[in-house]
Amino acid sequence: MPNRTPHSAAGLVPRSHCPIAFSLDIVGDKWTLLVLRDLIFAGKARFRELAASPEGIASNILADRLKRLEAHGLISRAPDADDARQAIYRPTPKGLDLLPMLLEMIRWGAAHDAQTAVPEAFVARIARDRAALIAELRARFDEPA
Amino acid sequence: MPNRTPHSAAGLVPRSHCPIAFSLDIVGDKWTLLVLRDLIFAGKARFRELAASPEGIASNILADRLKRLEAHGLISRAPDADDARQAIYRPTPKGLDLLPMLLEMIRWGAAHDAQTAVPEAFVARIARDRAALIAELRARFDEPA
Repeated sequence: MPNRTPHSAAGLVPRSHCPIAFSLDIVGDKWTLLVLRDLIFAGKARFRELAASPEGIASNILADRLKRLEAHGLISRAPDADDARQAIYRPTPKGLDLLPMLLEMIRWGAAHDAQTAVPEAFVARIARDRAALIAELRARFDEPA
Repeated sequence: MPNRTPHSAAGLVPRSHCPIAFSLDIVGDKWTLLVLRDLIFAGKARFRELAASPEGIASNILADRLKRLEAHGLISRAPDADDARQAIYRPTPKGLDLLPMLLEMIRWGAAHDAQTAVPEAFVARIARDRAALIAELRARFDEPA
């Protein structure tokens, strides 16, 4: 077993500076990218919205992944203007930089799951019109002027 | 907690047909894509070569991930012609279909790790010459005629 300090076990020190290992230290689990998916693609922003996703994420796992995403600078957390007891989560530019990877993950999943839920038109657009699609998704999270 | 059958716990039944969830059910952990990285980019093919990678994968985890990668059809396993007690692992076409996602993961890791180990020229080539790079990496695993 690798010798891990508590700090590296928390995923804050990368196992190596291989960019794949570095990325997996941050998003290499079954849930983190689903939370980011919901924030980026599904327009969700609140804990209870994220908790309601069809994969059935447990509350403690969701809370942990939101904390880790924030610690790594992939999402921001601010009080909800309508209800200050509640937080609003948004992807940061660093989180949105994962869009090209997420789109390739969508293509792979769509290509290899015969029952895929993603519309063919969306997959076709990733292949045809990738840069514009990324720009459009990013624009949803532009700071208000 | 979601109600999981042993079958779904083994990752053979997807949590949903969202293509991101489908992909994460197969490669959503800290190690699977590092094993694939070593097979695709580092020219490794044998258990002991994979076990020697700098991230220090434990033997039991490596054995488990090789089994899962084979079960999902991402790698093949054949006896080594030089030593039949030993196996040779190779990425399959389905495994190589993860190349676009892996390249985007490399770009993200390189962009966000100030100490990244990946050469700038390689990252630049991903941006400039992606299709040719993918074709070249795939060609390493063409079946001999």
